Amino acid sequence: MLTRPSPDGGATETALTRLAQMLGPRVSRAAGVLADHGRSEAYHAASPPDLVVFPETTEEMRGIVTICRDLRLPIIPFGAGTSLEGNASAPHGGVCIDMSRMDKVLATSPEDMDVRVQPGITRKQLNAQLRDTGLFFPIDPGADASIGGMASTRASGTMAVRYGTMKDNVLGLEAVLADGRVIRTARRARKSAAGYDMTRLLVGAEGTLGVITEVTLKLHPQPEAISSAVCAFPDLKSVVGTAIAVIQSGVPVARIELLDAVMMRGMNLHAKLGLPEAPHLFFEFHGSKGSVAEQAETAQALAGEFGGQDFAWATAPEERSRLWQARDNTLYAGLALRPGARALVTDVCVPISRLAECLVATAADIAESGLVAPVVGHVGDGNFHLLVLHDPASVEEVARVKAFNERLVRRAIALDGTCTGEHGIGLGKIDFLELELGETVDAMRLVKQALDPLGIMNPGKIFRSSAQMGGAR
Amino acid sequence: MLTRPSPDGGATETALTRLAQMLGPRVSRAAGVLADHGRSEAYHAASPPDLVVFPETTEEMRGIVTICRDLRLPIIPFGAGTSLEGNASAPHGGVCIDMSRMDKVLATSPEDMDVRVQPGITRKQLNAQLRDTGLFFPIDPGADASIGGMASTRASGTMAVRYGTMKDNVLGLEAVLADGRVIRTARRARKSAAGYDMTRLLVGAEGTLGVITEVTLKLHPQPEAISSAVCAFPDLKSVVGTAIAVIQSGVPVARIELLDAVMMRGMNLHAKLGLPEAPHLFFEFHGSKGSVAEQAETAQALAGEFGGQDFAWATAPEERSRLWQARDNTLYAGLALRPGARALVTDVCVPISRLAECLVATAADIAESGLVAPVVGHVGDGNFHLLVLHDPASVEEVARVKAFNERLVRRAIALDGTCTGEHGIGLGKIDFLELELGETVDAMRLVKQALDPLGIMNPGKIFRSSAQMGGAR
Repeated sequence: MLTRPSPDGGATETALTRLAQMLGPRVSRAAGVLADHGRSEAYHAASPPDLVVFPETTEEMRGIVTICRDLRLPIIPFGAGTSLEGNASAPHGGVCIDMSRMDKVLATSPEDMDVRVQPGITRKQLNAQLRDTGLFFPIDPGADASIGGMASTRASGTMAVRYGTMKDNVLGLEAVLADGRVIRTARRARKSAAGYDMTRLLVGAEGTLGVITEVTLKLHPQPEAISSAVCAFPDLKSVVGTAIAVIQSGVPVARIELLDAVMMRGMNLHAKLGLPEAPHLFFEFHGSKGSVAEQAETAQALAGEFGGQDFAWATAPEERSRLWQARDNTLYAGLALRPGARALVTDVCVPISRLAECLVATAADIAESGLVAPVVGHVGDGNFHLLVLHDPASVEEVARVKAFNERLVRRAIALDGTCTGEHGIGLGKIDFLELELGETVDAMRLVKQALDPLGIMNPGKIFRSSAQMGGAR
Repeated sequence: MLTRPSPDGGATETALTRLAQMLGPRVSRAAGVLADHGRSEAYHAASPPDLVVFPETTEEMRGIVTICRDLRLPIIPFGAGTSLEGNASAPHGGVCIDMSRMDKVLATSPEDMDVRVQPGITRKQLNAQLRDTGLFFPIDPGADASIGGMASTRASGTMAVRYGTMKDNVLGLEAVLADGRVIRTARRARKSAAGYDMTRLLVGAEGTLGVITEVTLKLHPQPEAISSAVCAFPDLKSVVGTAIAVIQSGVPVARIELLDAVMMRGMNLHAKLGLPEAPHLFFEFHGSKGSVAEQAETAQALAGEFGGQDFAWATAPEERSRLWQARDNTLYAGLALRPGARALVTDVCVPISRLAECLVATAADIAESGLVAPVVGHVGDGNFHLLVLHDPASVEEVARVKAFNERLVRRAIALDGTCTGEHGIGLGKIDFLELELGETVDAMRLVKQALDPLGIMNPGKIFRSSAQMGGAR
C-alpha cells in the first residue's frame, strides 16, 4: 500500500506510529537524540533527522526501509558518527537508522581468516573480540568508527599501505535495497568472478544505494613481531623521497606516516612527545622477528640517504602504543595549537610522484593565506590531511578556509589526484566529484536511479538530492 | 540518427559500409576471420560474429560503438581468445572488436608503480616491456591473456594469494559506454573515496556494461630473491592442511598450488618432471634473500607436520622456470592423459576451511562417474580446477561431464562457495549465477539495464540476452 504523504509532515507522524508498532521504545524523536544524530565532527552545519530508530535485526531493517519507502521518507544510516563530510547528517530530515544495537560478531572462521559482523560494531570492539584468535582487522582510520560506516565511506587510514582499504577487506555484504529486498552480495569464497561486483558497488556508496545489515571482513594474522620507528627530516621533499624509496625497495611497511613540523609542535603540546619540531616519518613494521629487524634496517639506510636524522626504533609495546596513540590523536593535537578552534580536515590524495610538489605548493598557500594547518599524511598512498584551524563563528575565516580547501582540491586534481582519499563525498564534495570525474558521475547517477528510483536512500549525499521525497523540507 | 535495421540483416551491411569508411581495411567479414573469433578454448559451440573490427584508438572505439548502437547490433570485445566460458563468443552475431592492435603501453610511472596500457596488450608483452623498470605485473592466469580480457573476467591465477586479483590491481579504466560516452573511472591516485567504484563495476562485467579502452594497473617491485619448492603429500587433506597453516603463519607465500596425483601423472608425461605421482604442493616465495630462505623453512616445517615428503627447494632460475612452466601448461598436461580429448575446465572456489571436504567429495564423484579429471588448485584461495576430459563428439560423454560439473557447482555453493573463482559467467554459468546469488542478480540486472538499455553490449553473457537487438539471429 502506497500512501502519498501530506506536505505538512503527516508522513513523519504516520512513520512514527508504524515504527513504534514494530520497535516499541526503539524509536525516538526526543530533541536530544535528534540533535546527537545531526551533529558532525566536521565543519558542516548540524542537520538533525525527524526520527531516530535503533533496529537490532535485518528483518527490522527491512521493515524500516519498507515503511520509509511507502511514505517517501529519507533513510539515513548512522554508525559511530565519526565521518567528516556530513555523510550521516539529515539535510532533508527523515529517519536516521542508528546502528549501535547491531553490534554483534555473527561468525568467526579462523581457518578462513574471516568474520561476519553486524554493521554497528566498531573496529576496536571487533579487535577486542578477535584477540584470542591470532587474527586481527587492520584498517585503522584513527577514530573508532563502525565497520558499516567504514565500509560505506571506503575508509582506509594508516595501515592501508600494507593491508589495503575497505574495498580490499570486505568480502561480502548483506544489504536492504530501496525496494525492501534483502541481498547478499557474495558468498564466503575468498574470490569470485560471478557477475558484477555488487560488494564493491556498495562499499563507498555512503548508504545511497542500500542499507548495510551485515559485513563479512577479511582478517589478517597478528604479526609475530611489531616494531616502530621515528625519524626527523630536513624538509618535506626528503620525507616523500624516503617513502618512495622504502616502498620501491619492497619493504612491506605496515605504516608510514608523515607529520609536518607544525603537527609535531601540536603533538609535543598534546602528548608530550618531546620530539624535534621538524617533518617526521613514523614507521611500523610487521613480520617475523628477523623480518622486522631487516625492514627497519633497510628503512633506516634509505632515510639516511635523504638526510633523515635520529632514526629511533622501538619494539616494546608501551613505547609503540604511546607513539601510535599520539598519531591517532592528531586531530586533538592539531586543535591544541589554537584552543577553541575547529578544524576543516582536508583529504586529497595524489600519485606519490606528485606528492612532494603538492605538499610544497600547499605549504606556500597556507603561509600566504595566513592559516595554521598542521599536516598528517598516509604518505605511502599519497594521501594527506590538513587540519585547517579556524573560528567557526567567523564568517571571514570560514570563507578563507573553504577557499583554501577548494584551491587544494583543484591542485590535487590537476596532479591527477582525487578530492577524497578516504572520507567520501558526503555533503561537502559534491561539486569536487564532478570536477574530478566529469561524465563518470553521470554513469554513477544512472546506477543510483536504477537502484533507488524514489531517491530516499541518504538523499543529498554524493549527488544533490532529487525532489522525490515526500518528507523533504 | 537512429535507423531501425530490417530483420533480413540489412543492419550488418550498413554497419560494414560505415565501419569501412572509418577503419578502411581494418574491418573484415572473411570466413576465416569470423571463425577465428567465434571459436572457444572451452566446450562451448563456436558462435562467430558477423563482422570483426580492429580499432587502434579510443576515438575509433567510440565510433564503432555509436554505429552499433544506431543499428542495434551486438558489440563483443575480444582480447586474446583465452577465456573459458564463451565470454567472447557471438551467440547473437554482431560486431566483434578485436583488441590486438590496441596493444600499447601508454605511460609508465616507476615512482608511482603504475602503468597505463591499451587493453589488447598481453600480460607477457607487458612484463617484457617492464623488465628494466624493476617492477612487474604479477597476475598470472596461466594463459597469455590480454589485460583487457583479464580485467573483464576479473582474472586471478597462481599469484592471487599474494598479489590479489584483477579487482585489486586495476587502478582505473577508460571505457566507452553503450551510449557512446567515454568515461575515465578514476584518476591516478592510489586510492579514492570519490563516489561509486565504477572501476570495480567494470572489472568482471565481461564487456556487458561498456568496452574497456585503457587500463591503469598497479605494479609491484620485482622481488630481490625468488625461490620455489615442491613437496609430495599422502592425501588431499594434508595438502589443504599445510596450505592453511602456511597462510595462517603469516608467510607471504607468492604461489601455493595444489596438483593431484592424476595431474602429476599428466605433467610427468607432458613435461618429464619425474616427480612422484602423489598430491603435491608447488610453492614460490618472493622477498629478500633472507626472507625467502626463512619462508621456505617455515613452509617446510609445516609441511612436515602434515606428512609432506621430499620437500625440495630451488633458487636457480632455470629450475624454477621449468617447474612453473610445467604448471602453466597443466591444460596440455591434462590433455596428455587422453590424446584427442577435450577438457571442460571447472572453476569453483570455496572457503578454505571447506576445501578438503569439497575436494574429497569431488574425487569420489569423479570415480563414481567413471571420468578422468586431473585437479590443479590455487589452494591458498580455495579455488581449484578440474580438467574433465571427454570426447566432444560423444553426446553421452558430454552430458555426463556437464552433469558432473553441475553437481560440483551445487556442492561448492552448498559449502558457501562460488561457481566461478576466476573464469567468469560467460555463456556457461548463467543459471549457476542465479543459484549462487539469487535476488542479487536482479540488482545486477537493474544496473545492466541502466547502463545498456538497448542490450547491445556483449549480449547473452552473464544474463540471458533481452530481445532488443536488431541484428539478433
